[in-house]
Amino acid sequence: MISPELEQRVRRAFAKQGFMTLIGAELTHLGEGSCHMAVPFRESVSQQHGFFHGGITATLADNAAGIAGYTLMDADRQPLSVEFKINLMAPARGERLEARAQVVRNGYRLKHVSVEIFARTGDEQVLVAMALATIASTGSMAEKPDT
Amino acid sequence: MISPELEQRVRRAFAKQGFMTLIGAELTHLGEGSCHMAVPFRESVSQQHGFFHGGITATLADNAAGIAGYTLMDADRQPLSVEFKINLMAPARGERLEARAQVVRNGYRLKHVSVEIFARTGDEQVLVAMALATIASTGSMAEKPDT
Amino acid sequence: MISPELEQRVRRAFAKQGFMTLIGAELTHLGEGSCHMAVPFRESVSQQHGFFHGGITATLADNAAGIAGYTLMDADRQPLSVEFKINLMAPARGERLEARAQVVRNGYRLKHVSVEIFARTGDEQVLVAMALATIASTGSMAEKPDT
Amino acid sequence: MISPELEQRVRRAFAKQGFMTLIGAELTHLGEGSCHMAVPFRESVSQQHGFFHGGITATLADNAAGIAGYTLMDADRQPLSVEFKINLMAPARGERLEARAQVVRNGYRLKHVSVEIFARTGDEQVLVAMALATIASTGSMAEKPDT
Repeated sequence: MISPELEQRVRRAFAKQGFMTLIGAELTHLGEGSCHMAVPFRESVSQQHGFFHGGITATLADNAAGIAGYTLMDADRQPLSVEFKINLMAPARGERLEARAQVVRNGYRLKHVSVEIFARTGDEQVLVAMALATIASTGSMAEKPDT
Repeated sequence: MISPELEQRVRRAFAKQGFMTLIGAELTHLGEGSCHMAVPFRESVSQQHGFFHGGITATLADNAAGIAGYTLMDADRQPLSVEFKINLMAPARGERLEARAQVVRNGYRLKHVSVEIFARTGDEQVLVAMALATIASTGSMAEKPDT
Repeated sequence: MISPELEQRVRRAFAKQGFMTLIGAELTHLGEGSCHMAVPFRESVSQQHGFFHGGITATLADNAAGIAGYTLMDADRQPLSVEFKINLMAPARGERLEARAQVVRNGYRLKHVSVEIFARTGDEQVLVAMALATIASTGSMAEKPDT
Repeated sequence: MISPELEQRVRRAFAKQGFMTLIGAELTHLGEGSCHMAVPFRESVSQQHGFFHGGITATLADNAAGIAGYTLMDADRQPLSVEFKINLMAPARGERLEARAQVVRNGYRLKHVSVEIFARTGDEQVLVAMALATIASTGSMAEKPDT
């Protein structure tokens, strides 16, 4: 559980990302150090074989990791993705793609985050990707003065 | 220089990716083992501070790497992204974002690809990200029987 | 549980690695798709502050991942590390360093492996690093003809 | 060119790493934002086929990246490897293994470093691996208070 104030702050930042609107991403869970994010399948998020595009999988992984880190930051700090790595293990085929991010090491400036990405159809789910991300906490994301 | 037949094959595969259309991506260069891909800035590809979204940067890196590998494959083979890693080094602020991918090791089944991503405004460019990707050559991407 | 024949094959390959002898690495667990490997602390595996050197942490992660993949390969195949990524999350301080690798996707040619690395002192353990690795199954590691 | 004082500081830190002595690593070049580091071949740094062990390749990559970052830090700061990724592209066969690290983005707290690793025999060299690393500048590496 996170505070209503933090939830509101996170959701407001999420809503301001034009790209999240474009791909139809939804925040499906927020916890202390965790975030789930999903995208329903549409042709506009596909690659040439009708699966979710790898760029969508990576986008979800990165963004869910950043928000998982955000839930552990002071009110005047913001998340900045330093880097991430993703293994695309199976075709991302399904009705929905869902990333589940969990902070595994909560440093003050750097959060290490592990992410699992599932393709879901009805009640079934397949693990299609795994990612490891480094998220910095920064005073002003616009200028990156802290990093 | 690559053959007209190969160029056509690559461009056809690119055109079938709904997600590339959605984000307005363009193939700006194709060579033997190299690919450049660009996206013009629009609010719909932004994050909350008005820069290109990290997911766009990652998408370009991954896709340019895959196509760079594709240019070195036999006609019956297709590229499959196995994994990639990206360092997001500076705010992706500019009129265009361009990924430049180069195969650095051309194995038969696995291509190792290095990618630089630049934010460009007029004649100026800033290196905003670097990526390293592993691209598999596979007989049928739909089923991944080779991997 | 793995067969005595497979266990012997894996241990024989492990014993042939001069570098494993040099650092005093031990195979502490072998299962289907899993491997644990440990190194006791000595000054010769340290960095300048008296912790385990990051190179030791990376070596254990890589090697444990390769052997975890090896346990799932046919008798005529051998593991080859294609790439790996490691997040060094906390100082690796302790009596022993132990990597625990688990195959998360068992493709025929490519195994995706997740690794956790713990620093242990007595009964206590701290998660000091996480890694994600791609291990290829190859017919003859000496020449890499399959990759 | 770097100042004699900085060179001495870097070499002193390097000499304190027991693991570097164990594997026979040498600093072969130091510049502003760059570092080369080499290991001569011996059986004790090999894997089962008589090549350099992947752990040696990774160790060199990580350490050269850290020192490349160190050359750009204030005198009271020290390098800390946050994470790195390495692609092992070809068998590391040769008389010497040499890593060449170059800082590509010099942030105050975070340095992004690209590394190429070559196997050398006489005048010939083969690119056997590439790595991307994130190095933090920290006030006291022993405690990681800044990260």
